[in-house]
Amino acid sequence: MSTFGRIASAVKCFTSVAVRRAGLHTSQSAAVPKRLWELGRLNHVAIAVPDIDKATAMYRDVLGAEVSEKHAQPEHGVYTVFVKLENTKIELLYPLGEKSPIQNFLDKNKSGGMHHICLEVDNIHEAMKDLKAHNIRTLGDKPKVGAHGLPVIFLHPKDCNGTLVELEEVPHADHE
Amino acid sequence: MSTFGRIASAVKCFTSVAVRRAGLHTSQSAAVPKRLWELGRLNHVAIAVPDIDKATAMYRDVLGAEVSEKHAQPEHGVYTVFVKLENTKIELLYPLGEKSPIQNFLDKNKSGGMHHICLEVDNIHEAMKDLKAHNIRTLGDKPKVGAHGLPVIFLHPKDCNGTLVELEEVPHADHE
Repeated sequence: MSTFGRIASAVKCFTSVAVRRAGLHTSQSAAVPKRLWELGRLNHVAIAVPDIDKATAMYRDVLGAEVSEKHAQPEHGVYTVFVKLENTKIELLYPLGEKSPIQNFLDKNKSGGMHHICLEVDNIHEAMKDLKAHNIRTLGDKPKVGAHGLPVIFLHPKDCNGTLVELEEVPHADHE
Repeated sequence: MSTFGRIASAVKCFTSVAVRRAGLHTSQSAAVPKRLWELGRLNHVAIAVPDIDKATAMYRDVLGAEVSEKHAQPEHGVYTVFVKLENTKIELLYPLGEKSPIQNFLDKNKSGGMHHICLEVDNIHEAMKDLKAHNIRTLGDKPKVGAHGLPVIFLHPKDCNGTLVELEEVPHADHE
């Protein structure tokens, strides 16, 4: 990149940050009300696996990651193990019970596969209103309590580029 | 959790951090040499999409994320758009050219879908040696230069719980 390019890029970046910090959005005019919710971090990427102990061992012993204990989450029909990365987590999922929501996925993907991404928002109800206004369907009408004890809702993969997206309400200061 | 549980948990957490900071790994005995590479951040989650402009608009206008320009990457057979989240990125992928490596994926997944995750390592050659020793296959024998101008290699999805994993060599201090 040329010197001019670097400067232009830096100015663009600074302007963008300044606009975001001022609570404005470049895609909205001054007449449009400020949005009532903000997108936050990628909380986790979830991977459904056919053997959770083997998958855990790979991340821990081969890749050297810190991993959680295996947790049974009967209300969600899954066992979970969280793989801690420096900036986010990988959630390993394995079916629990006969009506596990990931059994069908594993029947179709015998080796396992990426199941969903979880994005944090600071106000899940306002986010849901905005998404509905943009014809993005949610799976269910109300948030449920997710694996972290926080409100979550899933968005329809057909409305999100074939990707199952979980929204989790996480207050701004609480990034765990 | 009981008071004892909290204390036990805190001690366990502290011990784990202390062990990691000392450059040791709990799964290795003192006789085993220190590993020569470290796993780092989740650099990005890649999503292959059937309409990159529509997908970009969803992340920018509906979810309120900052997005990059669309970049043609002819050497990789893709167009890319990066969606900037607070802690990582989503990489939107769209086929470029007749031999695009994601065309087959989109033929099978008409609505699009999660394509791969990219994990950072600080020494890709040492990581590849370790992975080979654990019978995890790489796609190709040598790293290539990836979309960020850094060495990358893909791991075989069958050896990684059905998930295509890209490793990218990123020096410790360079997190962009």
